Amino acid sequence: MELKEMIRSIPDYPEKGVIFRDITTLLKDGEGFQKAIDELTDLVRDWEPDVIVGMEARGFIVGAPVAYALGCGFVPVRKPGKLPYDKYTESYELEYGTDSLEIHKDGIEKGQKVVIIDDLLATGGTSKATISMVEKSGGKVMGLGFLIELNGLKGREEIQEYDVKSIIKYD
Amino acid sequence: MELKEMIRSIPDYPEKGVIFRDITTLLKDGEGFQKAIDELTDLVRDWEPDVIVGMEARGFIVGAPVAYALGCGFVPVRKPGKLPYDKYTESYELEYGTDSLEIHKDGIEKGQKVVIIDDLLATGGTSKATISMVEKSGGKVMGLGFLIELNGLKGREEIQEYDVKSIIKYD
Repeated sequence: MELKEMIRSIPDYPEKGVIFRDITTLLKDGEGFQKAIDELTDLVRDWEPDVIVGMEARGFIVGAPVAYALGCGFVPVRKPGKLPYDKYTESYELEYGTDSLEIHKDGIEKGQKVVIIDDLLATGGTSKATISMVEKSGGKVMGLGFLIELNGLKGREEIQEYDVKSIIKYD
Repeated sequence: MELKEMIRSIPDYPEKGVIFRDITTLLKDGEGFQKAIDELTDLVRDWEPDVIVGMEARGFIVGAPVAYALGCGFVPVRKPGKLPYDKYTESYELEYGTDSLEIHKDGIEKGQKVVIIDDLLATGGTSKATISMVEKSGGKVMGLGFLIELNGLKGREEIQEYDVKSIIKYD
């Protein structure tokens, strides 16, 4: 079965006019989940990462297995107030207002090759904030890999200086 | 290196008198992370799960790779308001007040064998709430696997009718 067919589309969620792409229907299928992780792993393997960075929370579900499959370390980017040690914080814009993300200052060592993994590339806001924190940490962003890309939101343009790859695309 | 030595202990976090066990120092180490996931996978393999259930958010980082390693599906248990489809909700007690967790009603099929994975067994509150939702879904809880167990908080007693295994223990 095609991975895309295993994703559930929920109209008008979280608000009217938006179609939410629900990956839980893919995740719960053993074969589908394994195929998705294998494809994502193959997509980023050539970047030879030392470390995979994944964003809370769905980015953990796809990023951590990719790190495991590649034998890399995994560094979580978290919502504010969740990390217990010295950290960098970076804000990004939402439709209304701003939000922020954090990473441990010692999560990435200087010069390490980093691949950023998330389930979804939408507007690119969280990706941009994450790139900024990785670079502040001294890491080299080799590229970004996504399970899903929403082409219409043009997140790719927001991070156009970086290599971006995705498996499943929606207009 | 011992996995336990790769965990950072942070005194007086999040409040005075508490020692926080920070797994990010283990996760960021490729060898350490792989060893942790392999040990956790071996620990639960005999339960022959169809599905791994992991709790937001650190439970995703350990649970999803175990699901991948076993070729199982992964079903996330999330904080309120994060899941887009029909769901069960279960409350659990905190030191002050209550919190709740949610699971998609169609996440687990009737009769499926389920293993619950989280990074930490503390008081057992989130585990108990998760067990309850899995059983409401018609799943059979084969056992629970944890990266860390805090013996002093006696979470194991809270879920004593179930098989519980953990890799790293603190008094």
